[in-house]
Parts: sequence; structure tokens; C-alpha cells
Amino acid sequence: MDDSPHQNTGWMPYWIALSQILGVAALAVTGTWLSHYRGGFAWSGNLQFNVHPLCMVLGMVFLCGDALLVYRVFRNETKKATKILHGVLHILALIISLVGIIAVFQFHKSSGIPDMYSLHSWCGMATFVFYILQWILGFVMFFVPEVGFTYKAKFKPMHVFVGLSLLVCAIATCLLGLTEKLLFSIPKDYSKMPPEGILANTLGLLLVAFGIVVGYILTRDEWRRQPLPEEQALSIDFKTLTEGESPCEP
Amino acid sequence: MDDSPHQNTGWMPYWIALSQILGVAALAVTGTWLSHYRGGFAWSGNLQFNVHPLCMVLGMVFLCGDALLVYRVFRNETKKATKILHGVLHILALIISLVGIIAVFQFHKSSGIPDMYSLHSWCGMATFVFYILQWILGFVMFFVPEVGFTYKAKFKPMHVFVGLSLLVCAIATCLLGLTEKLLFSIPKDYSKMPPEGILANTLGLLLVAFGIVVGYILTRDEWRRQPLPEEQALSIDFKTLTEGESPCEP
Repeated sequence: MDDSPHQNTGWMPYWIALSQILGVAALAVTGTWLSHYRGGFAWSGNLQFNVHPLCMVLGMVFLCGDALLVYRVFRNETKKATKILHGVLHILALIISLVGIIAVFQFHKSSGIPDMYSLHSWCGMATFVFYILQWILGFVMFFVPEVGFTYKAKFKPMHVFVGLSLLVCAIATCLLGLTEKLLFSIPKDYSKMPPEGILANTLGLLLVAFGIVVGYILTRDEWRRQPLPEEQALSIDFKTLTEGESPCEP
Repeated sequence: MDDSPHQNTGWMPYWIALSQILGVAALAVTGTWLSHYRGGFAWSGNLQFNVHPLCMVLGMVFLCGDALLVYRVFRNETKKATKILHGVLHILALIISLVGIIAVFQFHKSSGIPDMYSLHSWCGMATFVFYILQWILGFVMFFVPEVGFTYKAKFKPMHVFVGLSLLVCAIATCLLGLTEKLLFSIPKDYSKMPPEGILANTLGLLLVAFGIVVGYILTRDEWRRQPLPEEQALSIDFKTLTEGESPCEP
């Protein structure tokens, strides 16, 4: 990462590294918890449930968080390449999350457990529905070339804010899911602080820390991706062509 | 609220109004839930627990949220008056939250319930400890006149980021508390979607919506409080006196 005055990243690479350490640690703890204490993974029977938390932490938290970071991490790559990477990470996140959601609905059906009654399910479904809306709107606004520069520019701050809000909501939903699962699985032992309880609580704190670090990186004004020199020229040309503005105007 | 080009607030007043509607609604639903379904409030016995959620929603969510908004809402008042209001709201928030925390620890003690084992308690305690640290650091940096202008300016973005992060963590902790309380109080009925479950879930969504609206208002660049004309002159004089900078420099 360049640290020229034009692209002043300061401590950002260390914060990026910290976010990845926290994200990978959260994934590792999720995998360990579910395989060591909850019997592992399968696509049928009781173990199908375990696919749900793993997919949601991987898709809605880790991959979504990393998708938000690509504009900071790959700040010296072209905007087009970075945008494609952002889209690819979100396609992966969407597919993996869908698998996780299908897993829990199928598990509920086969076990006779009602759906959509808990705060976890309400928050999770609201987050996922808004995520799909954000996906569709983001695709139309940033990948359809007919959409004008002015609309893109006006839409972008809302897209960024909603993206970070959805990551925060996804993390809060994970914490609710963890609490539910612990109270269902070890209702009498949880208050005695068994290793499983401590491990799952630690996973909760790792997810919170991941969210805070990603949020910090994204909200630091001076770490925003600056247009590359060739993009600045292109952007002015494009504005001139589409909006009829003079490239000499500020 | 002035809407001159210097203080371009656009739709901000409507977003502020929405935040207050959501915050008051969340408080009203908390009170209704605890008094109608959980027996009301007392400072002893089982009802002492109910003081905890009410105080935490009022202190750590509503008052903290409003304390963050004062620089946007009272943008035409002096910085000093706004800063004092910010401090007063945080004093109230701190006292009310402390009462709420004492209530739950006393209730646990009298009922023989272990403390600090759940993810709710871990997140809540971490949030409250960081809130106190933020309080102390904020007071030293912004109320002690000996602290230099450069230190204040460098510290401010971190203070703002940590403040909003703590509000988000407080809301996530409330959602965890709601889930715990419902699974303890109506473990068999919750899945049948009784009125209490729907009301408490709705409270969760209201808290999330309050956090999102406050976050949106605080992160809109163009809604940041601009220094008043007299403050701009004062700030330049102060910088010149303390840092030896020329008031004519950009």
C-alpha cells in the first residue's frame, strides 16, 4: 500500500491486518465450537443446524466485512477491478448466507420447530431482506452503464451507510443466535461458565471487535480511496459528457 | 434550525424527529412490557430486576443517543453551551445506567443467580467499562482548559467514533438481554408468538431503528456542526496563541 501524500494511509495497513486476524479467529472459533461441542456438520438431521451459524458468520460477517474493505485495501488498483472484487465477494456472501438460511429452515421443518418467532429470526430476516435490496440497488446503480454520474454520486453515501449498518445488524443477529443456542443447548450449565459457554461468549466478543475495526477503517475520512490520476481525468471527461459541466470548473 | 448555505441541514430535522419518535416509542414499549407482562417495578424482590432493562434503555440508549445528537440539533447555539448539554445528558445517562446495573446485581444476589456468565453480561460490562473510560477521557480532553487545541482536534474523531460504537454495543446488549429474558420467562410459549413475545421483539426492532437513524444523522458529512462565525475567529486566535501559527495561514 502506497503511503504518498495523495494516498495517506498511515496506520491503516495494521488496522486491516487486525480486522483479518479477528475475522479469521471468529471463523476458527465458530468451526471449533460447532465441531467440538455441537457434533460437527451434516446436511440432514440435527447436525444440519450447525451449517447455519458457520455460513452466516462466513457469509454475512466475514465476506461482507471484507467486501466493504476492498476499496481501502486495493486503493491503487483501478476502480473497475475493485468494484468487480466487491461484487464477487458479495456474490459469495449471498450464496453462502442463502445456504445457511436454507439449512436452518430445513432443520426446523424436519424437527417440528416453529420458524420466525424469535428476535434473532426477526433481526436476521430483516437484515437479509435489506441485504438483497441493497444488492439489487447497488448492482443497478453501479454496474448498469446507463445510470448517470449524478445519480451514482448521490446514491453512493447511502449505499456505504446501509452496507456498514447491515454488517452491524448481521453481527448483532449472530450474538442473538449465539445466546439462543447456548440457552437451548446448555440451559443448566451455562451459568456455571463451562468451556463451551466461555468459547461461545469469546466468539461473540470477536465478532463485535471485527465489526468495530471494520467500522473504524471505513469511517476514517483520510483513509477513503482517492481517485487515481487517470480516473480523475476520466471522471471529469465523463461528467463533461453526461452533465454538460465544464472540466475547468471546481 | 437554520437552513442557510453555511448550515445546510436539508432533511435533518425530519430525521431528528424520527429518532425521537423511535426513542420515545422504545421507552414506552419497555415500560409497557415490564409493567403489563412482568409485574411492574420495585427496589426489592423479583420486581427489582425490571428496573434494569428500563434504566439501561433510558440511560445507555435514549440519553446517550440524544447526547450524541446535541451538536447537530443545537448547531446554532454556542459550542460551550452545546458541550455542557452533551455533558449533562451523559451525567444523567451514567447515573441512570449505574442504578440499572446495581438493580440487576442486587436482584441476582438476593435470588442466588450467578453473575457475569452470559454473552449479554460480557457485552454489557465491556460496553459500560469503555463508556466510563470514554467519559473520563472526554472530560479531560474537552473540559480541562490546559489541554492544547492540537490534542483536542486529534482526539475528537476517535471520541466521536467510540461514542457511536458504544451506542451500537449498548443496543446490541439490550437485544441480548431481551432474548435472555424472554427465554427465561416464557420458554415454552415464546415459539407460539404470544403478545408478550411480539411486543418484546418489536422493542428490539425499535432499538435497532433508533440506532440506525442516530448513526445516519451522525455520519452525514454535510450535517456536521459548522463553527459559528464568532467561533471561527476565536478558534484562529486560540490556535495562534497556543500553537504559534499565523492566523493568515490556511
